[in-house]
Amino acid sequence: MVGIKLFALNGNVPLAEKIAQEVGVPLSPISVKHFADGEVQVELPESVRGADVFIIQPVSDPVNENFMELMITVDAMRRASAHLINVVVPYYGYARADRKARSREPITAKLIANLLEMDGIDRFIAVDLHADQLQGFFDIPVDHLQALPLAGEYFREIGLDKDVVVIAPDHSGTKRARELAEMLGAPIAIVDKRPGDDNVGVIGDVAGKHTIIVDDMIDTAVRVQDAYAALQENGAADVYVTATHGVLSAGASERLAKLDLKKIVVTDTINIPEEKQLPNFVILSVGPMIGQGIKMISSNQSIHPLFEH
Amino acid sequence: MVGIKLFALNGNVPLAEKIAQEVGVPLSPISVKHFADGEVQVELPESVRGADVFIIQPVSDPVNENFMELMITVDAMRRASAHLINVVVPYYGYARADRKARSREPITAKLIANLLEMDGIDRFIAVDLHADQLQGFFDIPVDHLQALPLAGEYFREIGLDKDVVVIAPDHSGTKRARELAEMLGAPIAIVDKRPGDDNVGVIGDVAGKHTIIVDDMIDTAVRVQDAYAALQENGAADVYVTATHGVLSAGASERLAKLDLKKIVVTDTINIPEEKQLPNFVILSVGPMIGQGIKMISSNQSIHPLFEH
Amino acid sequence: MVGIKLFALNGNVPLAEKIAQEVGVPLSPISVKHFADGEVQVELPESVRGADVFIIQPVSDPVNENFMELMITVDAMRRASAHLINVVVPYYGYARADRKARSREPITAKLIANLLEMDGIDRFIAVDLHADQLQGFFDIPVDHLQALPLAGEYFREIGLDKDVVVIAPDHSGTKRARELAEMLGAPIAIVDKRPGDDNVGVIGDVAGKHTIIVDDMIDTAVRVQDAYAALQENGAADVYVTATHGVLSAGASERLAKLDLKKIVVTDTINIPEEKQLPNFVILSVGPMIGQGIKMISSNQSIHPLFEH
Amino acid sequence: MVGIKLFALNGNVPLAEKIAQEVGVPLSPISVKHFADGEVQVELPESVRGADVFIIQPVSDPVNENFMELMITVDAMRRASAHLINVVVPYYGYARADRKARSREPITAKLIANLLEMDGIDRFIAVDLHADQLQGFFDIPVDHLQALPLAGEYFREIGLDKDVVVIAPDHSGTKRARELAEMLGAPIAIVDKRPGDDNVGVIGDVAGKHTIIVDDMIDTAVRVQDAYAALQENGAADVYVTATHGVLSAGASERLAKLDLKKIVVTDTINIPEEKQLPNFVILSVGPMIGQGIKMISSNQSIHPLFEH
Amino acid sequence: MVGIKLFALNGNVPLAEKIAQEVGVPLSPISVKHFADGEVQVELPESVRGADVFIIQPVSDPVNENFMELMITVDAMRRASAHLINVVVPYYGYARADRKARSREPITAKLIANLLEMDGIDRFIAVDLHADQLQGFFDIPVDHLQALPLAGEYFREIGLDKDVVVIAPDHSGTKRARELAEMLGAPIAIVDKRPGDDNVGVIGDVAGKHTIIVDDMIDTAVRVQDAYAALQENGAADVYVTATHGVLSAGASERLAKLDLKKIVVTDTINIPEEKQLPNFVILSVGPMIGQGIKMISSNQSIHPLFEH
Amino acid sequence: MVGIKLFALNGNVPLAEKIAQEVGVPLSPISVKHFADGEVQVELPESVRGADVFIIQPVSDPVNENFMELMITVDAMRRASAHLINVVVPYYGYARADRKARSREPITAKLIANLLEMDGIDRFIAVDLHADQLQGFFDIPVDHLQALPLAGEYFREIGLDKDVVVIAPDHSGTKRARELAEMLGAPIAIVDKRPGDDNVGVIGDVAGKHTIIVDDMIDTAVRVQDAYAALQENGAADVYVTATHGVLSAGASERLAKLDLKKIVVTDTINIPEEKQLPNFVILSVGPMIGQGIKMISSNQSIHPLFEH
Repeated sequence: MVGIKLFALNGNVPLAEKIAQEVGVPLSPISVKHFADGEVQVELPESVRGADVFIIQPVSDPVNENFMELMITVDAMRRASAHLINVVVPYYGYARADRKARSREPITAKLIANLLEMDGIDRFIAVDLHADQLQGFFDIPVDHLQALPLAGEYFREIGLDKDVVVIAPDHSGTKRARELAEMLGAPIAIVDKRPGDDNVGVIGDVAGKHTIIVDDMIDTAVRVQDAYAALQENGAADVYVTATHGVLSAGASERLAKLDLKKIVVTDTINIPEEKQLPNFVILSVGPMIGQGIKMISSNQSIHPLFEH
Repeated sequence: MVGIKLFALNGNVPLAEKIAQEVGVPLSPISVKHFADGEVQVELPESVRGADVFIIQPVSDPVNENFMELMITVDAMRRASAHLINVVVPYYGYARADRKARSREPITAKLIANLLEMDGIDRFIAVDLHADQLQGFFDIPVDHLQALPLAGEYFREIGLDKDVVVIAPDHSGTKRARELAEMLGAPIAIVDKRPGDDNVGVIGDVAGKHTIIVDDMIDTAVRVQDAYAALQENGAADVYVTATHGVLSAGASERLAKLDLKKIVVTDTINIPEEKQLPNFVILSVGPMIGQGIKMISSNQSIHPLFEH
Repeated sequence: MVGIKLFALNGNVPLAEKIAQEVGVPLSPISVKHFADGEVQVELPESVRGADVFIIQPVSDPVNENFMELMITVDAMRRASAHLINVVVPYYGYARADRKARSREPITAKLIANLLEMDGIDRFIAVDLHADQLQGFFDIPVDHLQALPLAGEYFREIGLDKDVVVIAPDHSGTKRARELAEMLGAPIAIVDKRPGDDNVGVIGDVAGKHTIIVDDMIDTAVRVQDAYAALQENGAADVYVTATHGVLSAGASERLAKLDLKKIVVTDTINIPEEKQLPNFVILSVGPMIGQGIKMISSNQSIHPLFEH
Repeated sequence: MVGIKLFALNGNVPLAEKIAQEVGVPLSPISVKHFADGEVQVELPESVRGADVFIIQPVSDPVNENFMELMITVDAMRRASAHLINVVVPYYGYARADRKARSREPITAKLIANLLEMDGIDRFIAVDLHADQLQGFFDIPVDHLQALPLAGEYFREIGLDKDVVVIAPDHSGTKRARELAEMLGAPIAIVDKRPGDDNVGVIGDVAGKHTIIVDDMIDTAVRVQDAYAALQENGAADVYVTATHGVLSAGASERLAKLDLKKIVVTDTINIPEEKQLPNFVILSVGPMIGQGIKMISSNQSIHPLFEH
Repeated sequence: MVGIKLFALNGNVPLAEKIAQEVGVPLSPISVKHFADGEVQVELPESVRGADVFIIQPVSDPVNENFMELMITVDAMRRASAHLINVVVPYYGYARADRKARSREPITAKLIANLLEMDGIDRFIAVDLHADQLQGFFDIPVDHLQALPLAGEYFREIGLDKDVVVIAPDHSGTKRARELAEMLGAPIAIVDKRPGDDNVGVIGDVAGKHTIIVDDMIDTAVRVQDAYAALQENGAADVYVTATHGVLSAGASERLAKLDLKKIVVTDTINIPEEKQLPNFVILSVGPMIGQGIKMISSNQSIHPLFEH
Repeated sequence: MVGIKLFALNGNVPLAEKIAQEVGVPLSPISVKHFADGEVQVELPESVRGADVFIIQPVSDPVNENFMELMITVDAMRRASAHLINVVVPYYGYARADRKARSREPITAKLIANLLEMDGIDRFIAVDLHADQLQGFFDIPVDHLQALPLAGEYFREIGLDKDVVVIAPDHSGTKRARELAEMLGAPIAIVDKRPGDDNVGVIGDVAGKHTIIVDDMIDTAVRVQDAYAALQENGAADVYVTATHGVLSAGASERLAKLDLKKIVVTDTINIPEEKQLPNFVILSVGPMIGQGIKMISSNQSIHPLFEH
């Protein structure tokens, strides 16, 4: 029995270290370099024969570099006779490209799943997928961990469980809003943006209430901006924002800085560099949760009681 | 060039005939029998060598019988040297089993897709999928036709385009409600059912308005019942219901009969037997739309202008 | 090491209980429901992570329902991280559809095998396959257990090992008749039915002899009826019938009741409801044999000495 | 449109020439050499881009050389952009290894099918398969041509359609005997060899009759020898033998020469060298039948009326 | 018949335009954007149903971005019902990662091939592969075009066909050097670099000769630098360099600028920005050759006479 | 835990015995027969359920027989429930067919790899592959053992480590020559054969030196003959030859006998029959090395320190 080995690629080393600490196994050495010509080189200094490996890598910006690091590492692991290859992808890049919204679009989220399966992974461990259907893009086991309860717990701790309304910033987010609302015993409201209409309405009552906009990710923050405006216009007392994945692409932090948000609560599924952080940021770590998941998975215990919804 | 051939299995022969009429090609003969021991036997009296075949079969009740009819027919077509095997599945059974909602659930909607691909189909033609992500369950081309505009057109024709609110009967239906609302220039409201709470609220304003509950399917009609009650309680002037797929499983018609619904507008993706129909039923046919789609597909024209959203 | 877990689907729970008793492991809980709309829902109340599971399900009437129960359960097991998925299929529905007997027929028996392999099963355990070639429809290990010796033993016990002729009821059953004949030290005879000829002859001498008609299954019992008539006409002293699989589709028991058969010896690979049983039925259980097979398989012992021919 | 191209490998060039003559297309050039080190080299002097190719090669002695010639040629064709690759295998080597007759046996007939499918063939054209179930070893279209009617026609032409009994030389050949018997309006009888018994009996009446032993192949001719002896002992007037495939492995012709057989009727699915032929050999050609099949296949006509049973 | 369509992704639009000009078909519109969060979005404004598409994209720096552009575009094409998907990859990134040179290395060149095949491409068109064995990494047709003759022709045109020695800059390049030498009627010499030895020797005679260093690519130009030094030391009269692929990663042009090279002859398989070009650069276009190849492929003519070696 | 089992097929039983001795596990019984009709029959007298099997078989002359023995044995092992199937192929037949050297050639080396993977092997263990890229023809783990150091050690032991030049007999062998040269601290030279030129030159200085021609295999020995002549002409003091694989096809030994070679050093990857051996043959055994590799593999230790380069 060789046991388990944890590997961190370049996507989010600080999170990997937190995970390793929880698991109680140090990160195994691996070298992942980018050459001057743009190619990625992976080297495994130690044997992985017979080992159950967990490779930790969010597919976050730089998305394609991070994804190819993962693919190439899996290829090396497989050829080097690893026993089981588990990949831990705290943030699933391209997750929004999960359907053809227009004619002749790719479904890149499925492509990503296909490529990983073809590469020979044995298990996919994810956190707060953009859509639950993404589990079905795989035929291998997917362990889908839930980070939303971390946010729920945070808001309860700061006393935000009365006179509060949870806000879905668009139609597709209603289910997530309802889940957070359950944790806080709160009602929900929905931001209703009609195509071609500059005005953004709110369905539901927010006047004089604390409001928490909840989404799976903050990317450009334009949706937060719009929701914020609508909430202001409808008399919300104040506005909090929470999202599992802090994508924060170019301009997002600037956009958020201009709004009078009480707190912006995200997790560390994506590593958020200092320069993108604002004073009102709260960053919760998914490291302990993922670490506990790995321990249960590797000892064949159900992860149900802790994480799955 | 052998040309195209259309085949109707037992699921919905009347619809297949409407499709054939639009395409201008008669249904080809096929015999699909169920033996006393429960096995299905398929016979193809005429050659399909080199033909582009379209097999029309909703995976509706009896779901497993209909699905196996389809699978066995595809096997026969493939072994009989059909050139391209297109399957037209107006109703996708098991579509709601598209994710693990609880630990250790199957994802049967993906299983269905896998089985069809493995059986060698070349194209999957669907109508108003329960979730857009189902397209991504396939790696072959999926032509996803839209029946919701038929309902939009109907409501416009009967003058229901002012003082009307479109109702999503639960959180996951908001996007569909928004789409129908756009066609009618209407606002939306959402029925908000909290787990463990007997009261069902409505988010949004419906007092004194015409309301149209829109869903992708009516199965047990319990959700319609709940939504109806909530709308009544919130002072809606009257209530219409529309859904693409009239599943109408045991007790549904009885349940609907007890409500004072102005119209129940469904399509014929599933064949609705006389005894399940009520006086206020309006059944729109998707036959012409599917027929036109087949014509365009078989002549390599884009189906975009007419059907895809 | 998680160990083995046994699961019974709805096809034949009594047999599954006999198997479990022999293995010495209780059946694990599983819920397999059929909804009003015809869909099957599977729930696994307990974790199967890392377990070697054995799923017991004959593909008998209702054939398609039972088959889909099996497929969906395997999907759930695979996604729930079962280690090895063994399926025990005491009766292989569609086994007779194992070749194209006419142009453009499906080969449904192969389709069934393909679908199970695609679904990710690791081993297929069968009893008295209709044709030995069905093993080759799979590329995974097939453990083919033999129930015919149970019948042989029974007939020896009741003293039927002299003045007896074993009867193949048609040309394709000669090999099976020869096998039973070896166990009893008996000669064989063959019922010879010519297409388009009402008379059914017997090749071989049966006058004044005890005769045992042997087949792999009794479906409609028409073949037994014909063989009985031919044996009567050729002066057989009396007639016994044996078959592994008691399919007994509509009308079979009525047909059998009209014949003066000494004994009708079948096994419980298919559950035979009380109302189909006749006073001259003898039902032998394959439970102990399958249970012993599972014990040997799960301890990596050869099953050769006991079961395989 | 590039059209069809026919290729003969080394297995049976004379048959390939007869096929080509019937099709009306000359054999395309191909070079298949065996090097001194035992490797096979294939060269295609002319382009096959876009062509529908038919590669003619029985998998007869030397079985493995012939099979690898076929596999390597298919690889070359696929890489050279042939459009459709049809393989014509008049004799299917390893066909008898179609099941596990003992524990831990391979099922080589399935392996052969798998390897050909994996290599990318689009269609498999066979003649008188050892067992019909072999069709199901493939998932691609199999066109199964029937040569037995050629023998039936021959025997009718020489007047052997009365006072004749068709003989199955063992239990598994009863179905084939019944088919030939139908063509001649004759009864059948079965040679009954019990394990461990030197005497070989005959089930059915042959005294004073013309007899025709029918089998799918003559390999060592030991079975013919045994059947001949049993027929002599039971007073047959004379004995004919027919089989589709003249395998005639070492010693077979010598064995046949010692028997007083009226005619030994085989086909040219396998090329029979002069030195193996006896004066009483009749060799019927399957060339016209296969040629006609290819014409129909390549023009998308059903092959049903002529060949399939 | 829809005909062929050419698409240029972002890798090398100028080359794609030259190819399109030779083919006589304009580039079809396509939009390939990189979002702020690092994801790639592909849009096809026009239908590709039934079309034979050729997607032109070198996998050059930025390697992973370009590769994912290609993968995602293929996904979109396949789902949009393109008939045949041909990819033209003038430069094959990761080609040097074609074996495990050390323990536990990936074989990324094979991974790239696997991913493209899995994505559903029908043909791979390449230019001067790093190793011929890369063809075998694919199972689909590979059309391997040869650009080295362009360099041969150039050197003959400038009169460099006497007193010239062709130089392999390391051991693995001997075969390529021999090929160019054949075109010029020249001898070859080999630069011999021993591990751990600072001195680089030359095997073969170069004193007083024109020398042409030939390689498949110039990446960092360190190998050219070393070869140049060795040739200088061994008395070469002057030094030319040629390579098909001008990778020219960071620092390469600076390195080349310091050497007294007569000409640096490369092709445009990779787009070389102005700022990397030096006065002694000669850039030959592979556009006409690739264009002619596409014409022949799409009309099912052999590409042998022009391009393959 | 069943442990490992070693099996020798007919290709090289003496080597298999040496391997078994090193591993300390006796060869398990297996029967591999060739029937008179050319078919191969494999029998496994003992159970392999749950065992990790190592099947030892070079794909040497008779290449196709040996390869099919291997394929059929793997099929039997897989169906008999072996746990992991490792194949040890000391000599990889068809390895030189690893690319299309001319239009429309097969790539048989890839075909061999594909067939083995499809048959279900879990690991491929090879010795001194003709080209390193062959590793990439597989997607499963390949353990590539190195025998060249055995030759290096031999030459050092006989004192051949000064005044020696290692000779690459053609351009593609330079890398291998460089490797052996490193072991001996020697320079290299290259035999330069131009197409269409009878004279064979030598690039590099050999006058008065001991020379060692090194190649991966000696097949017809024509290349050795040519290299020998060139070395003689260029004044070599004497000539040794070494190669890992002694293919020695028809005429090779005769050709070698005519040359005045000091030693011909090969290994026993291929069994060399007495009658092909010459007095100056030295046969080194790879048995201990392979045996040690198997021990490390089966105990999940890295094979790096001993074998891989």
